[in-house]
Amino acid sequence: MKTVLVIHGPNLNLLGTREPELYGCRTLADINEELRRRGRELGLKVDCFQSNGEGEIVDRIQRAIGAADGVIINPAAYTHTSVAIRDALRVLSVPIIEVHLSNIHRREPFRHKSLTADVVKARLMGFGPAGYRMALEALGEMML
Amino acid sequence: MKTVLVIHGPNLNLLGTREPELYGCRTLADINEELRRRGRELGLKVDCFQSNGEGEIVDRIQRAIGAADGVIINPAAYTHTSVAIRDALRVLSVPIIEVHLSNIHRREPFRHKSLTADVVKARLMGFGPAGYRMALEALGEMML
Amino acid sequence: MKTVLVIHGPNLNLLGTREPELYGCRTLADINEELRRRGRELGLKVDCFQSNGEGEIVDRIQRAIGAADGVIINPAAYTHTSVAIRDALRVLSVPIIEVHLSNIHRREPFRHKSLTADVVKARLMGFGPAGYRMALEALGEMML
Amino acid sequence: MKTVLVIHGPNLNLLGTREPELYGCRTLADINEELRRRGRELGLKVDCFQSNGEGEIVDRIQRAIGAADGVIINPAAYTHTSVAIRDALRVLSVPIIEVHLSNIHRREPFRHKSLTADVVKARLMGFGPAGYRMALEALGEMML
Amino acid sequence: MKTVLVIHGPNLNLLGTREPELYGCRTLADINEELRRRGRELGLKVDCFQSNGEGEIVDRIQRAIGAADGVIINPAAYTHTSVAIRDALRVLSVPIIEVHLSNIHRREPFRHKSLTADVVKARLMGFGPAGYRMALEALGEMML
Amino acid sequence: MKTVLVIHGPNLNLLGTREPELYGCRTLADINEELRRRGRELGLKVDCFQSNGEGEIVDRIQRAIGAADGVIINPAAYTHTSVAIRDALRVLSVPIIEVHLSNIHRREPFRHKSLTADVVKARLMGFGPAGYRMALEALGEMML
Amino acid sequence: MKTVLVIHGPNLNLLGTREPELYGCRTLADINEELRRRGRELGLKVDCFQSNGEGEIVDRIQRAIGAADGVIINPAAYTHTSVAIRDALRVLSVPIIEVHLSNIHRREPFRHKSLTADVVKARLMGFGPAGYRMALEALGEMML
Amino acid sequence: MKTVLVIHGPNLNLLGTREPELYGCRTLADINEELRRRGRELGLKVDCFQSNGEGEIVDRIQRAIGAADGVIINPAAYTHTSVAIRDALRVLSVPIIEVHLSNIHRREPFRHKSLTADVVKARLMGFGPAGYRMALEALGEMML
Amino acid sequence: MKTVLVIHGPNLNLLGTREPELYGCRTLADINEELRRRGRELGLKVDCFQSNGEGEIVDRIQRAIGAADGVIINPAAYTHTSVAIRDALRVLSVPIIEVHLSNIHRREPFRHKSLTADVVKARLMGFGPAGYRMALEALGEMML
Amino acid sequence: MKTVLVIHGPNLNLLGTREPELYGCRTLADINEELRRRGRELGLKVDCFQSNGEGEIVDRIQRAIGAADGVIINPAAYTHTSVAIRDALRVLSVPIIEVHLSNIHRREPFRHKSLTADVVKARLMGFGPAGYRMALEALGEMML
Amino acid sequence: MKTVLVIHGPNLNLLGTREPELYGCRTLADINEELRRRGRELGLKVDCFQSNGEGEIVDRIQRAIGAADGVIINPAAYTHTSVAIRDALRVLSVPIIEVHLSNIHRREPFRHKSLTADVVKARLMGFGPAGYRMALEALGEMML
Amino acid sequence: MKTVLVIHGPNLNLLGTREPELYGCRTLADINEELRRRGRELGLKVDCFQSNGEGEIVDRIQRAIGAADGVIINPAAYTHTSVAIRDALRVLSVPIIEVHLSNIHRREPFRHKSLTADVVKARLMGFGPAGYRMALEALGEMML
Repeated sequence: MKTVLVIHGPNLNLLGTREPELYGCRTLADINEELRRRGRELGLKVDCFQSNGEGEIVDRIQRAIGAADGVIINPAAYTHTSVAIRDALRVLSVPIIEVHLSNIHRREPFRHKSLTADVVKARLMGFGPAGYRMALEALGEMML
Repeated sequence: MKTVLVIHGPNLNLLGTREPELYGCRTLADINEELRRRGRELGLKVDCFQSNGEGEIVDRIQRAIGAADGVIINPAAYTHTSVAIRDALRVLSVPIIEVHLSNIHRREPFRHKSLTADVVKARLMGFGPAGYRMALEALGEMML
Repeated sequence: MKTVLVIHGPNLNLLGTREPELYGCRTLADINEELRRRGRELGLKVDCFQSNGEGEIVDRIQRAIGAADGVIINPAAYTHTSVAIRDALRVLSVPIIEVHLSNIHRREPFRHKSLTADVVKARLMGFGPAGYRMALEALGEMML
Repeated sequence: MKTVLVIHGPNLNLLGTREPELYGCRTLADINEELRRRGRELGLKVDCFQSNGEGEIVDRIQRAIGAADGVIINPAAYTHTSVAIRDALRVLSVPIIEVHLSNIHRREPFRHKSLTADVVKARLMGFGPAGYRMALEALGEMML
Repeated sequence: MKTVLVIHGPNLNLLGTREPELYGCRTLADINEELRRRGRELGLKVDCFQSNGEGEIVDRIQRAIGAADGVIINPAAYTHTSVAIRDALRVLSVPIIEVHLSNIHRREPFRHKSLTADVVKARLMGFGPAGYRMALEALGEMML
Repeated sequence: MKTVLVIHGPNLNLLGTREPELYGCRTLADINEELRRRGRELGLKVDCFQSNGEGEIVDRIQRAIGAADGVIINPAAYTHTSVAIRDALRVLSVPIIEVHLSNIHRREPFRHKSLTADVVKARLMGFGPAGYRMALEALGEMML
Repeated sequence: MKTVLVIHGPNLNLLGTREPELYGCRTLADINEELRRRGRELGLKVDCFQSNGEGEIVDRIQRAIGAADGVIINPAAYTHTSVAIRDALRVLSVPIIEVHLSNIHRREPFRHKSLTADVVKARLMGFGPAGYRMALEALGEMML
Repeated sequence: MKTVLVIHGPNLNLLGTREPELYGCRTLADINEELRRRGRELGLKVDCFQSNGEGEIVDRIQRAIGAADGVIINPAAYTHTSVAIRDALRVLSVPIIEVHLSNIHRREPFRHKSLTADVVKARLMGFGPAGYRMALEALGEMML
Repeated sequence: MKTVLVIHGPNLNLLGTREPELYGCRTLADINEELRRRGRELGLKVDCFQSNGEGEIVDRIQRAIGAADGVIINPAAYTHTSVAIRDALRVLSVPIIEVHLSNIHRREPFRHKSLTADVVKARLMGFGPAGYRMALEALGEMML
Repeated sequence: MKTVLVIHGPNLNLLGTREPELYGCRTLADINEELRRRGRELGLKVDCFQSNGEGEIVDRIQRAIGAADGVIINPAAYTHTSVAIRDALRVLSVPIIEVHLSNIHRREPFRHKSLTADVVKARLMGFGPAGYRMALEALGEMML
Repeated sequence: MKTVLVIHGPNLNLLGTREPELYGCRTLADINEELRRRGRELGLKVDCFQSNGEGEIVDRIQRAIGAADGVIINPAAYTHTSVAIRDALRVLSVPIIEVHLSNIHRREPFRHKSLTADVVKARLMGFGPAGYRMALEALGEMML
Repeated sequence: MKTVLVIHGPNLNLLGTREPELYGCRTLADINEELRRRGRELGLKVDCFQSNGEGEIVDRIQRAIGAADGVIINPAAYTHTSVAIRDALRVLSVPIIEVHLSNIHRREPFRHKSLTADVVKARLMGFGPAGYRMALEALGEMML
């Protein structure tokens, strides 16, 4: 059984409790639960992780070396500022998909610059929580 | 029955016949056929259109006003240069998803700038031809 | 009797049918009709042309060489992206006036850059459809 | 009877006496006189003001609050450097039209940047002294 | 008894009469009166000055040489454009505090650049009229 | 009794022990103690927190949701680099004041760019440790 | 017998009829005729094409796939704005030479940027109509 | 007898009283006196003027039209910010020399940009008060 | 006996296990062991530390105040993004040498910008693991 | 008999001995010999010169004043850095053609900037050694 | 008797023989002769040097260490490109004056950037050959 | 016996005689002598070369082709301006180490840009004269 690691970046632990008009009313626990269930249907083990710390996300990515067969990551704020996460992702040899809940091109200009975009295989944004599921299904096909 | 318009920008008519290592070996006809079939499963009528001309794409988008319930567009080269297509898309009040076959952030710097990114609802890239199907399914859900 | 060519750029064929709060509720046909009527009062023949295609606009400008005595152009989106239209306008030796319905300095930053501004004799913006009439009257005086 | 304030920025008091090939041979007094006469035809009182001082122009704009029903301004050199005039104009709630005698896009690059362009309702340039009359007539229609 | 000079830049004479939702409903006279009263409590003489003219503000700063023991300045629009005021402030050897009513970082990008910020001892913004009082109290402590 | 959270960013734990000519000789403990005492006078509970870690500061801000009635933050180095802290601050609906001990406009150019400046209500800098007290008093008034 | 496709971009159909001091007095028909004759001498079939439309040029390039053994292109205005033509050229595996009649480095700064320069094998400019013949001869040698 | 106008920009009235280590200990009155004396030796009438106001300097330059045979100007802070003074200088048809007391390239980067440098005939800087005399003598020769 | 602190930034704990063609096959433990052995030869105590967390590296640098006589740091990804580490290094009064395994000028452009380069005494790059030893020996001489 | 000066810039003396896959295997002596022979056929005397020194190339260009009837120059590295060579070329009143062996737009970005491009009559690149012969033939025609 | 070194940069050896309308008709020999004569009047020995080579100019500057009491330099093209000459000038402890014949701010934009301007004591430009004499006289006064 | 070429760029011949507080008091002869002695210990022949001329340095590098087994270069000022030296270095296939005496990131911003950094194997800076010896030892190991 293959394993998919799902990483949620800073402030995503607040999902569903704040600004529901922007991010929807589903909590991160709901989203993770749905991803694990959908994973089971696809024969995939789904591990979920969230942290507000750049170093802790790097640590978690490193632990996925040799242990995960695919990675879904929403780096949130670190998309725009973290070379360390970029470097950690580059070490992975499994497919990586970058997900953003909202369309970041509709937000502040500094969010248009991405340090991770060119080290992932694919990216999608603007689909809300459904984006994670889409990424999981696509990853399932890629790992066949 | 709802209608989805799929627009393929310049040079995409060559898909499957050139650079298969980069874009895969499926032709645009194959992709369109699959989209129409998948659309039928989802209860959606799928209209496909390709053109190398900026003005013709604007014309086609305008004809979709009041006629299409959702749009999938891969503006290809015009992503980076066409304000006219951007303006036409802005007139549409139905959901629009932007698709790119490859991860354009891995290509030349001028491809990182997009004139359409902030006028679409969502975008995905790097999934190859499967990206169109993902967009169609997501659009189906959005139009419910 | 002198001839004035009026060129409307991409998406202007939708005038009056979309976003009336922004562009007013008069259609392009209404505007053209008024221009022709005002032209007759001024002893001017007014030819109107609209296209969404950059090449077709270049074609039309070229046909005006030696045939039109003045040009009014609203290049719309092509204001910001078309060197080809700029080059075609430069060939004309008759006075050219550039018109924009809205004040483009109140819109996205990429609309502040213009490729046509320095090849026309005069420009006006923000007067809505009345701007065309103002341009026609001014052109009439210039051609005396 | 409605009142229109016409403000001429620095160095415009030299009009007609210097560089006639560039700015025409009509003096500022001539232009103001014509504007007042045209205003009377349109049922408008026209007040004219010229100053080389940034602060004095701000003072004059402030005095127009509640006293003028429309403003025509040619900020000349201050177009490109004065945030103070911009701030004063923003306070006005009546329509404002910006006029330039020449097409400033044909001049030095620093003249392409404008601090006032996005706080006025409309702008026109390149029509020579006739531009003031066009602005007055347009303002007359806007104030109906 | 020590003397504090308070300088208000262009358009601040309109305070309280325009855009109260943005700048509050207190007039400049009210603010100055409160500053003078608070000054008396602190044993400070408070001189207030407002002008829309850059040169007049420079004149006033120069007169403060050897006469004022501290300066509070809200350069308003001149914050972003005046090297002359910057140069005049540099000549002063007493502490200077820069005050802005609103948080200028929430406004247009050109307001983020400041020509005075690095020649003053301290700055504060976003506190509304209370910011002047805070500056006066801080200046009182600095001048001890 | 209302609660104010005071957050000190990286390296501020060294205050008073290093570079006293630049930052004064008061330790962070001294400053916090004074803030708590001043808070008691104003009827405010003051919670103080310092961390060198970006993620830990985000964690602390998140815990303030619904728990603090106002926030004072000196993001120090993270002012210029942390989108994550910016995002966390944006979630708070209580007033936030940003404090810097020194006038950061007198330091390296990269310190002139701020990622937090436009998500706080007010900011002050250059007042040394007294700036915290000024912010606390202002916050007390804002929370009335 | 090998085939060379010669593509002339927008406004080149006016050659010889306008601005002869800049572009010489030979018409495009003259140039094409000479190229065909010179081609016959070199044992090459020369196909000539001109269009003002970006999409039509892309169409024509695509038809050359597998049909032409070499391409000469003067993209004119599209040199500076067309990613679509660049992408079409990239698909060709035959040698491509870019020709400009005038030295574009002596013209407006926006003409110094080229989107095609790095996808062609060689380029020449400033030789007037003779540049096409030079390119044809060089292409003949390259295709040996 | 020819007339030379000498214009001193903002803050130069403080010369000799402030920062003598930077600007020397001679007052502006001393400098003007020496210039007038040296002018008499050269058969030149020397008129001196100083103002802190941009508009007043523009006024003074305008009055020199037809009245002065040469101009020496130290625009000081307005060197870097005043398009109005630039425009006034451009109207003059007599030789103009720009003088700066210190070498402005050794000062802040914003002082390296000049709006007047390309509208004067010659400039010199870094010679202290002697620079005015050098300019006067050079002007004397130019006006022969 | 003098003490040298060696700090390894994010992802360096993977050394020797990943991308050996780029970084060599020696692990971080090997490198540290060699540094400690070489240190003993030179009469130096070598303390080694690695962390993926920016805040933890700041913490470790702070603990070195008064405890280490020299510092070797390879900030890795934080070279380009961390003002916090820069600020912590600035507090140290002992010599600091910055080491990079590869020549970072051969990598992505964002790696050419460094926030630490001007706060260290010396830097070396491109020597692989040997660079640490070279830095240790040089530090030994500097601390004499 | 007319004379053509051929100038080869720095490192071109290594042609044919290094990186033959990039620059071909013909030495500079071979190329010069061919140019002289081709010159004789065209009735032209061909003088060849190579130097690695900027000043020596300027010297050589100066000696060509009044002595050469045309110049071919491959400034190599100095294309991008030498204002001195640009200035020397500007003095020449004979036609100048700039040649580059490779297509410099396919190389490092700093090679896209040219200081000589706008002072020559024509330029060609990417034709390898044949480019010199093409330039010689074109120069022969220009000098007729 | 004090010694002044005068250095003329590249292409200045052509003075008087080329472009007299721009640079006057006096040769470099004439200028040097006049400088030597004027030097004798002032009790100064004047050494003149011209070279087209950057390295040779650096050599000459180095030989002036301890030998010259003042330097006049017209770096010509190297003003904009030579860090080496800048570094050599910085070593000198005697006063240096930079001279340009024409006003370089009226020429190409790349001439507005100077690498020497901030390492000289004073600079003057636009006075033609007379500028050298003015510099010599000023240097004479500075060396008193 | 292997040979190492050591190249010192412009102004380094002054080492030890000027600004000893910045560059130390050892002359270039001393440094070269030490390098030769240290080379003998390592079984390396060390050739030293210094020139102020760009072309001469290119010449010397070219002579090292096939003759030197490693190169140490301190390009000094040419680091930032010489494409010619860069191109010459690229031709060498032996390891190259770049050395700077001071930490160039602590100096003027234009020194932060390097044209040689990405064509050398390794670089070190800030170690003073000892940096040459470190480079020699490292080169000795690389050449094993």
